[in-house]
Amino acid sequence: MRFVTFGEIMLRLKPPGAERFLQSPAFEATFGGGEANVAVSLARFGLESSFVTAVPDSPMGEACIGELRRYGVDTNMILKTGKRLGIYFLEQGAAQRSSVVIYDRENSSVSETSAEKYDWEKIFAGASWFHITGITPAISLNASNVALAAVNQAKKRGLTVSCDLNYRGKLWKYGKKAPEVMSEIMRFADIAVGNEEDCQKSLGIDPGFTTGNAGFDEKRYRVITDAVLDSFPDLKKIALTLRQSVSADSNGWSAVLNNRKEYIGSLRYDINDIVDRVGSGDAFAAGLIYGLNKYDEDREALNFAVAASCLKHSVPGDFPLITETEVLNLLKSGGSGRVVR
Amino acid sequence: MRFVTFGEIMLRLKPPGAERFLQSPAFEATFGGGEANVAVSLARFGLESSFVTAVPDSPMGEACIGELRRYGVDTNMILKTGKRLGIYFLEQGAAQRSSVVIYDRENSSVSETSAEKYDWEKIFAGASWFHITGITPAISLNASNVALAAVNQAKKRGLTVSCDLNYRGKLWKYGKKAPEVMSEIMRFADIAVGNEEDCQKSLGIDPGFTTGNAGFDEKRYRVITDAVLDSFPDLKKIALTLRQSVSADSNGWSAVLNNRKEYIGSLRYDINDIVDRVGSGDAFAAGLIYGLNKYDEDREALNFAVAASCLKHSVPGDFPLITETEVLNLLKSGGSGRVVR
Amino acid sequence: MRFVTFGEIMLRLKPPGAERFLQSPAFEATFGGGEANVAVSLARFGLESSFVTAVPDSPMGEACIGELRRYGVDTNMILKTGKRLGIYFLEQGAAQRSSVVIYDRENSSVSETSAEKYDWEKIFAGASWFHITGITPAISLNASNVALAAVNQAKKRGLTVSCDLNYRGKLWKYGKKAPEVMSEIMRFADIAVGNEEDCQKSLGIDPGFTTGNAGFDEKRYRVITDAVLDSFPDLKKIALTLRQSVSADSNGWSAVLNNRKEYIGSLRYDINDIVDRVGSGDAFAAGLIYGLNKYDEDREALNFAVAASCLKHSVPGDFPLITETEVLNLLKSGGSGRVVR
Amino acid sequence: MRFVTFGEIMLRLKPPGAERFLQSPAFEATFGGGEANVAVSLARFGLESSFVTAVPDSPMGEACIGELRRYGVDTNMILKTGKRLGIYFLEQGAAQRSSVVIYDRENSSVSETSAEKYDWEKIFAGASWFHITGITPAISLNASNVALAAVNQAKKRGLTVSCDLNYRGKLWKYGKKAPEVMSEIMRFADIAVGNEEDCQKSLGIDPGFTTGNAGFDEKRYRVITDAVLDSFPDLKKIALTLRQSVSADSNGWSAVLNNRKEYIGSLRYDINDIVDRVGSGDAFAAGLIYGLNKYDEDREALNFAVAASCLKHSVPGDFPLITETEVLNLLKSGGSGRVVR
Amino acid sequence: MRFVTFGEIMLRLKPPGAERFLQSPAFEATFGGGEANVAVSLARFGLESSFVTAVPDSPMGEACIGELRRYGVDTNMILKTGKRLGIYFLEQGAAQRSSVVIYDRENSSVSETSAEKYDWEKIFAGASWFHITGITPAISLNASNVALAAVNQAKKRGLTVSCDLNYRGKLWKYGKKAPEVMSEIMRFADIAVGNEEDCQKSLGIDPGFTTGNAGFDEKRYRVITDAVLDSFPDLKKIALTLRQSVSADSNGWSAVLNNRKEYIGSLRYDINDIVDRVGSGDAFAAGLIYGLNKYDEDREALNFAVAASCLKHSVPGDFPLITETEVLNLLKSGGSGRVVR
Amino acid sequence: MRFVTFGEIMLRLKPPGAERFLQSPAFEATFGGGEANVAVSLARFGLESSFVTAVPDSPMGEACIGELRRYGVDTNMILKTGKRLGIYFLEQGAAQRSSVVIYDRENSSVSETSAEKYDWEKIFAGASWFHITGITPAISLNASNVALAAVNQAKKRGLTVSCDLNYRGKLWKYGKKAPEVMSEIMRFADIAVGNEEDCQKSLGIDPGFTTGNAGFDEKRYRVITDAVLDSFPDLKKIALTLRQSVSADSNGWSAVLNNRKEYIGSLRYDINDIVDRVGSGDAFAAGLIYGLNKYDEDREALNFAVAASCLKHSVPGDFPLITETEVLNLLKSGGSGRVVR
Repeated sequence: MRFVTFGEIMLRLKPPGAERFLQSPAFEATFGGGEANVAVSLARFGLESSFVTAVPDSPMGEACIGELRRYGVDTNMILKTGKRLGIYFLEQGAAQRSSVVIYDRENSSVSETSAEKYDWEKIFAGASWFHITGITPAISLNASNVALAAVNQAKKRGLTVSCDLNYRGKLWKYGKKAPEVMSEIMRFADIAVGNEEDCQKSLGIDPGFTTGNAGFDEKRYRVITDAVLDSFPDLKKIALTLRQSVSADSNGWSAVLNNRKEYIGSLRYDINDIVDRVGSGDAFAAGLIYGLNKYDEDREALNFAVAASCLKHSVPGDFPLITETEVLNLLKSGGSGRVVR
Repeated sequence: MRFVTFGEIMLRLKPPGAERFLQSPAFEATFGGGEANVAVSLARFGLESSFVTAVPDSPMGEACIGELRRYGVDTNMILKTGKRLGIYFLEQGAAQRSSVVIYDRENSSVSETSAEKYDWEKIFAGASWFHITGITPAISLNASNVALAAVNQAKKRGLTVSCDLNYRGKLWKYGKKAPEVMSEIMRFADIAVGNEEDCQKSLGIDPGFTTGNAGFDEKRYRVITDAVLDSFPDLKKIALTLRQSVSADSNGWSAVLNNRKEYIGSLRYDINDIVDRVGSGDAFAAGLIYGLNKYDEDREALNFAVAASCLKHSVPGDFPLITETEVLNLLKSGGSGRVVR
Repeated sequence: MRFVTFGEIMLRLKPPGAERFLQSPAFEATFGGGEANVAVSLARFGLESSFVTAVPDSPMGEACIGELRRYGVDTNMILKTGKRLGIYFLEQGAAQRSSVVIYDRENSSVSETSAEKYDWEKIFAGASWFHITGITPAISLNASNVALAAVNQAKKRGLTVSCDLNYRGKLWKYGKKAPEVMSEIMRFADIAVGNEEDCQKSLGIDPGFTTGNAGFDEKRYRVITDAVLDSFPDLKKIALTLRQSVSADSNGWSAVLNNRKEYIGSLRYDINDIVDRVGSGDAFAAGLIYGLNKYDEDREALNFAVAASCLKHSVPGDFPLITETEVLNLLKSGGSGRVVR
Repeated sequence: MRFVTFGEIMLRLKPPGAERFLQSPAFEATFGGGEANVAVSLARFGLESSFVTAVPDSPMGEACIGELRRYGVDTNMILKTGKRLGIYFLEQGAAQRSSVVIYDRENSSVSETSAEKYDWEKIFAGASWFHITGITPAISLNASNVALAAVNQAKKRGLTVSCDLNYRGKLWKYGKKAPEVMSEIMRFADIAVGNEEDCQKSLGIDPGFTTGNAGFDEKRYRVITDAVLDSFPDLKKIALTLRQSVSADSNGWSAVLNNRKEYIGSLRYDINDIVDRVGSGDAFAAGLIYGLNKYDEDREALNFAVAASCLKHSVPGDFPLITETEVLNLLKSGGSGRVVR
Repeated sequence: MRFVTFGEIMLRLKPPGAERFLQSPAFEATFGGGEANVAVSLARFGLESSFVTAVPDSPMGEACIGELRRYGVDTNMILKTGKRLGIYFLEQGAAQRSSVVIYDRENSSVSETSAEKYDWEKIFAGASWFHITGITPAISLNASNVALAAVNQAKKRGLTVSCDLNYRGKLWKYGKKAPEVMSEIMRFADIAVGNEEDCQKSLGIDPGFTTGNAGFDEKRYRVITDAVLDSFPDLKKIALTLRQSVSADSNGWSAVLNNRKEYIGSLRYDINDIVDRVGSGDAFAAGLIYGLNKYDEDREALNFAVAASCLKHSVPGDFPLITETEVLNLLKSGGSGRVVR
Repeated sequence: MRFVTFGEIMLRLKPPGAERFLQSPAFEATFGGGEANVAVSLARFGLESSFVTAVPDSPMGEACIGELRRYGVDTNMILKTGKRLGIYFLEQGAAQRSSVVIYDRENSSVSETSAEKYDWEKIFAGASWFHITGITPAISLNASNVALAAVNQAKKRGLTVSCDLNYRGKLWKYGKKAPEVMSEIMRFADIAVGNEEDCQKSLGIDPGFTTGNAGFDEKRYRVITDAVLDSFPDLKKIALTLRQSVSADSNGWSAVLNNRKEYIGSLRYDINDIVDRVGSGDAFAAGLIYGLNKYDEDREALNFAVAASCLKHSVPGDFPLITETEVLNLLKSGGSGRVVR
C-alpha cells in the first residue's frame, strides 16, 4: 500500500530561538510545507510514502529532495524543473506575540509546472491513497489545475482521496476565490480535514454563527461538519481540529469527526511550552490517514491523530518527526513527560 | 516633533539560553540600558527619536552607535569621548531561579563626561519631549549633575519632561542618596513612571504599608501615587507598573495611572514563557510616552503602554522591538498568539 | 571534613534545544552521572568533595577530569585506566514528549576496573561521609563488587554512608537482580535517598498498593519509608522525592523524610518551564547531605534539599550548579524570580 | 558632498564556514549587492553616502534598510514597494573548489519598480557623485531603463558618474545583450571600473587577444583600456583590477588605471587565507571613488583602491567594513598583520 | 549496474573549528567511515550505490541510515541489530599540529554481526562491483570473517572486487596480523587502492627501501606496485596515492597506477587551506571506481580520482560531497577557485 | 618543585571567526593574559603550577578561577577582592588585516590590590621558580609596586626568577616609563625572555640599528642580547623570539638564546594558516622554563620552547593547550600534520 501526497515543499527560514527577523544574522534553514509534512509523517509511521512535487534542478532542489529522502519519503516522482524553490520566512511567536509567516513562493517550480508534465500513471501505480490540501490550488492558477488533474487521476484509479482544506489568507491572489476552486476539488474527496475557519473560508460554508476562541461548544461543530457533508455527497468523513490559543506557547488541542453515522469528540490535550506548532495540522492529517488505515473504529483513528499532532508541537521544524510508538505511548500514559531511561 | 532621551547605553553580555555564567565559553553580545531602550522603542513606533549619551571613540563605541542607528534612532548628538563603554552581565533566570545582573559600568564615558560637553542647544532644538530615568543620576556624581542640567535645559525650553524613577540598588555608590538627588530632578518632571519600590526607594515616599507580591490591592496604589503627586506639585501624571512575579518565566503584568483627576487601572496580562523581561519597564515608559501623544484619553495611553510592554517580554535583548501595529493587534485580539499567515 | 562520592561519570551528548537526535549535525557535549552530579553539587556548596572513578587515559578522560576540577571537585583519586568513557545520549523532551536516554556505557573504564585498583586507604583518609548510588552496581558485575567493597571500606573507617537507590531499568543486564545487590549495599547505609519506584524496584519492597501520579497521598509514603526502615535496621533515615509529572516542562516537586522518630513532609514547588531535569534527584541527595551536616533539624535539611533540587531544574546540563546562597534565597523568597540588580 | 549609489541589495544566504549547501540546517544571513557594497564602503570611509533602491514594505525590507543604516548609509531615498527582496545563495569555495552563487532575484522590488517612481530631484539634490554598475541593467528590462534614467538625471545635474562594468553571466536573460545596454549607459560615465572580462563581455570590446590567468602581462591591459577609452570619448578614466586566482583561498591582486595621459600599474598584494572575496571588486570601486576625491594623483587613488579591496578579502560578508585608517596603515606597513596592542 | 560497499559507519564527533577536545562543550556530529564514504561518493556521482553494514535498532542507527539515504545511498541491505554504533572522535589539526583520531568502536553492531546474518544473495543481486577496505577486517575477528565471506560471495557471482588496503595502526588488536588477513582478502581483488605505507603494513610487502616524505621519487613507486602485483596474480591494477604533508593545512596530492601494462603518474595538486582531509583517500577510491567504469583509458580514470579526492579536501565531514561536474571542471580549469556567478 | 606565576588574567571577548567587532551579536568568551598563559602551559606540561592574582568575588571571578583549575593550575593563592575583572576585546586579523586588541582593564582587581594583601610566605613556600612579565608593572602604579615586591620576595627566598619583557604600548599610562620600572625588576631576574622591540622599549636598550622585518640577520640579535646582559650583571640568560610576519595568517618563527657563554639560534618554523597567535610568546616563555628545568643543554631548551610556541599558533584562545608529548613529536617529525589514527 503506497500513500501519495502532492504539493509544494519550501525552504523555511527562521531566526534562531524567539528572535525577531534578523536580530542575529542567521536563519535556521529547514524544509516544509503542508503536504510534504504529511508525506514525512506517514513515512515516520512506517508507511510507504511518496511525495510528488517540482523543484528546481539546482543544489537547493537537490538538498530539498535529500532531506525528504533522509526521513524515508520516496522522492522518485519529484520533477526537477522550473526556476526556483518557494521560500517562507517564519518568525516564531512567544507569549502574547504571534508567529509571523512571510511567503516568498511566487514563481516556484511547482506553481509553474503544468499537469501534463507529471506522469500520473507512474505516480499512482500501486498506490491506494492520495492526499492533497487547499494550499496547492491557492498558489497559482496552474497549480490549481494540477491539483484538479491530480484528484481526477487518483479518483479514476480508485484511490481514496483525502483533502486538508487548509485556508491560507495570504495566498489566493491569482484571481479565483477559494470556494470556487476547492468545491470542485472536494467533489473527489473521500475524507476531509480542516478546522472551522477552513470550512467557512475555503468552502464558503456559513454555519450561521461563529464558535470563536472562547466557548468552544463542541456540539456546534456538529452543525458545521453536517453542513460540509451535505454539500459534498461523496464525502465519507470529515474531521476538524479545535485549537484554543491561550498564547503563542499554550494551546488546547482536540478534534471532532463526523462520519455521517457518528459525531465523535476526541481526547483533549493542554499543550504548554510549545516548541513549534507549524505542521501540527499536517501531523493531524497524517495521523488520521494512518489511523483510518490501522483501526476499525473512527474514534481510535481520531484519537491517534490528535495525539500525534499534540506531539508535533514539541518538535522543531515543519516535519512531524514522531513515531507510531511515541503516539501509542502518549495515548497510554497521558503525556506526563517522564524521562525514559 | 522630536523625542529626546538621555542616559547610558551598555554592552550587554549574556550566556546562551538559560546557561549560568560561562558554562559555555560564549556571550550573546547586544546593547541596552534603560534610556536607550526607550529611545529604540519610540523609534520603532515611528517617532523621531534622538538618543544622547557619550561612548568611547573606539570600535566598541562605533558598534554601539551603529546598533542604535540600525533601529532608527538619531545618534547625531552622541559624543565620542571618554575611556570605556559600560558593560552589564546578565544571567537569565528560569523557573525559581532569578536572573542575575552584574554591573561593570564604573568609569564609563557617560559617567565621566561633564554637562558642559553636551550642546544642549542643538540637542533640544525642535524637540518636544525629554525622557530621563533614575539610573543616570545613580551612576556617578558627575552623571547626576548632567541629569540635573539636562532636565533644567529641557524645561526652560518648554519640553515635556518624563522621568522613570527606576531605582537600582546596586548603584548609588558615590555618596549621595537616591531621594536627595531624585527629588531635585523630579521637580522638573511632568510625567513620572515607576513601580511601587521605586516610589519608596527612589523618592523616599513611604505609604505607611507594604503592598507586596501577594494581595496586589490596586487601590492601595492610589495612596502611593497620591503621595508622589502631593510631593511634586508640578507633576501632572504618574503611572506605576504592577508585576506579579510567579516565577522567572511567569509574571502578571498591569499598571495604574493617576492624573490628579482620575485613578485608572489598566488591562492585565498573564505572561508565561517569558523570553526576556529586561527592558519591559522601559517598553512601558516608551508606550506611555507614545500613548500620551497619540490618544486623548489617558486610559488608552495606559493600555497601550501595558500592551507594548507585555509584548516586550517576548523579545530577546534589551530593545523593545515592537511596532505600533503589533501593540494595536494585541489590544484587539487579546494575545492568543495564532500564526499570522 | 571531606565528602567522598564514587561512581561513573559519562560524556553526555544532547541535541541542541528541543531537537530530536541529529536533526542538526551537532551535540551539546557535557559530562554527568548520578554520583558525579552529587560531588559537583557538594563542591558548589563549598564542601571539600572528592570524586572517585576510573576514566581512560586519553584526551576524553583528561577533559572529563578537567571539568570536575573546574567546579571545585577534588579529582586526585580518579584512576586513569581502562578502555573508554561511558556515553549517554539525551534527547530532551518537551510538552507531552518524554526525554529519551540512550546509554552507551558498556565496557567503560569504571565498569571494568576492579576493587583492588582503588587505594581505599587514601580515598577515605580524613573523610567523614561516603555517598554511593544504585546506578554503579547496575552497570556490571565488577562495578557492583567495587560498590560493595567501597561501602564496606567506608563503614569500617567510621564514615557516614548515604545511598541513593536510583533504579535504572535500562541497566541491570549482567545477571543479578537489583534487590539482590542493593539489599547488601544498603546494610552499610546510614541514610537512604530515592523515590517510590526506587523502593519497589531497587529494593523489592512492595507497599501493597500503588501511589501513582494522581492522588499523591503523602501519608502513604509513610508506609513505604517505614517498610524500608524495617528492612534495614542500621538505616537511620530515608528521604523520598515526590515528582508530579504534568508534562516534560511542568512538574510538582516535594519530598518526605522518615527518621524513625518523625515523618516529615517538605515544602512543595511547582516547577514550570523546566530547563533540564536530569540531575535533580542528585541535587536532592547533595542538598540533603549538605543539610544534614548544616542543620540540627531534619526538616530544615529536607527543605534545603528540596529547594536545591528545585533550582537544579533551571540549570542546563547534569551538574547542579547551585550555590548555598541561592538555595537560601529561594527558601526565603519563595522563588518569584525577580531580577537581582 | 554627497555620493549616491543606485542598485539592488539582496539577502545573502550562506552555509556556515566552508560547508556545502545545507550540510547543516542553517544559513548565515546578511545583505549585499554590488552597489550596496560600494555605498557601505563609502560610508565607512566617512563620506556622506546615499543608497537608492526599492525593497518590499515588509520586515525583510525593514531589516535590510536597518543594516545599511547601521553602517552609516543614508537610506532616506529607498522606496518601500514591490513584492520581494532578491536573494542570493552563496556557497563559499575552498582550496580547488570554487564558490557557487545561485541567484533568486527575479521579480524583486528593484527589478520591477519603474523609473518614475524615484524622485530624482530629491535623490540628486546636493550630490556630487553617482555610481552605478553593470548588474542593475542586467536584472530586468525595467531595471535597465531605470539605470539609464538615473545616469541621465545624474549627468544633467552635473554629477560625476562612475560605472562598474561588472558582467554577470547568469543574468542578462530578459532579451537584450549586455553591450547593447551598457554602451548606452557608458556614454554618461566619467569613470569606468571593471576587469578584463567585463570589457569584453559587458562592452563587447575585443582586444584581439586573451590575457588569461597565466602571463598577466600588465602592459597588454593598456591595449584594452585604450580601446574602451576610444569607444567612449567622454570617459575620463578607466581602472581595471587584475585577479590571479591561484585557488579559492589564494589570489594575487592588483590594478591598472588609464587616464588618457598616464597608464598606471598599482601595488600588488598576494592574498592568502582569503576570508571572503565577494565584494572585493566593489571595495575597489569605492576605494577608487574615495581616492579620486582625496588625492591629486591618480596613482595614489589607485593604490588606495587596491589596498582597500585587498583588505576586503579578510572581512566576512559582502560589505567592505574597512576604514580609511586601516587602508592607510596597510599602504604604510605592507600588511604584515602584527597584532595591534 | 549497482555498486556495493561493505563496512562500518561511525558517528564522528569533532570539536568546532580547530578547537582541541572539549574546549567548548560541543561536538559537530556527522557520520563517516572509509567504506561509507566511498558509497556516498559513488551515489553523488550518480551511480546506484548500496551500502551494507549493521547498525543498532535505535534512534542513533536510524539517524545514521537517514543520513546515508539523504545523499542517495541505497540502505535497504543495512541490518538493524547489535548493541552500539561505533564512534570516532576527531580533533582537527592545524599548522604544525596533527589531527587526532580516537576510536571508540569496539563492540559495534558491525563488528559483532556474523556473516550468515547478511543475505548475500539479495545484497549482490544485479550488482556489478564490490568494494571493501582493510579497515573492516581490522576491527574484530568476526568482522574479518565477514569481510572474507563478502569478497568470496562477490567473486563467485562475478562482480569486480576492489579493495582499499587502508592500514589502521590503532586497530588490529584482536590477535591476527594485518598481512595474514589482508593477503587472503586480496586474492579475490581485481583492483587495489592504497598508499605506500598500506602496502608495507597491510600486506607486509617490503620494497627494500623507504620513499619518505621528502624525495617523492615517483618511479620508486613502480617497484612497490610491481611487488604487489607479483604477490597477487589475479590483481589487475593497483593505484597508490602520494600525499606530501607540508603541514596539517597544506598537502601535495597525486597518485600512480600500475596496470601491468603501463605505469601511470597522475596530475598533481598543491592543496593549501585544507578544510578536512579525512575521507580523501576514500574519495580517491570512489573516483577511481567511477573513472574505471567511465573511461577507456586508465590515465583518465586516475586523473579523475585524483581530482575528485583533491576536491574532497575542501569539504567538511567524512563524506566526499562532490559531483562529477565539479570534478570535470577542476580537470578542465586547474582549480583557480573563481566564483561561479 | 612548584612554579609560581603572578599577573593579571582577563576575560577575553572575541567575535566569532574572522568577523569584525559585533558583525554578529556574539563574543567567544575565554580567559587569558600573559602570565596566566604561562601558568596554564606549565600545568599542561605536567608541572606543579601556581597562579597568583586577584579577581573580584563574583560569578565572573569564580568562572575565571574555575577555568584555570580546569587546566590543572593551582588557584589557592588567588585573592578574591577588588571591583572588576579586566577585559580585553580581540578582533582576529586575517590576510593583510591586523588583529586588534582593545584593553578595558583599568581598575581591575589585580591593578588595585596592594602588595601587603598577598601572603608571600605562603605563595613561595616550597616553590623553586617565579615568573613575571612586563605587563603587570604597566597596568598601574600599584601593580608595579606589587611586581617589585614579588620579585624581591621571590629572590630573597632563593627562587629562580624569570621575566618576560613583554612591552605593551597601549598600557604604561599611569606616569612612569617602562625602562624606569622594568630596569628595577630586571635586577632580580635570572632569565629574561622577549623580542627585539621589548629590549628597546621595555628596557630602553638601543642597539644602534634596527633589525626590522626584512633582513632578519640573526647575528645582529647577538648585539642586542649582549647589551641586555651587560646592563644586568645578575642576569644569566636571555632568549629572544624572532617573528617574521608575512601576514596575519603566515609567520616565520624562531628564537635565539644568549647565556653569556654561547649564542644559540633555534630551529625555525614557517607557520601558515595560523589559528590564534595570541599567547604564543607566553608559550615560548613556558616552554623555555620547562626546557631549562628538563634539559642540560640550553639549545634543547630553546628548541623545545620554539616548538611549543609554534604549536600554540594552532590552538584557539590564549591558553597554550599543548602537551610535552606533542612538542616532542613536533621536534621529531618536523610538523607534517599527518592524521594520527
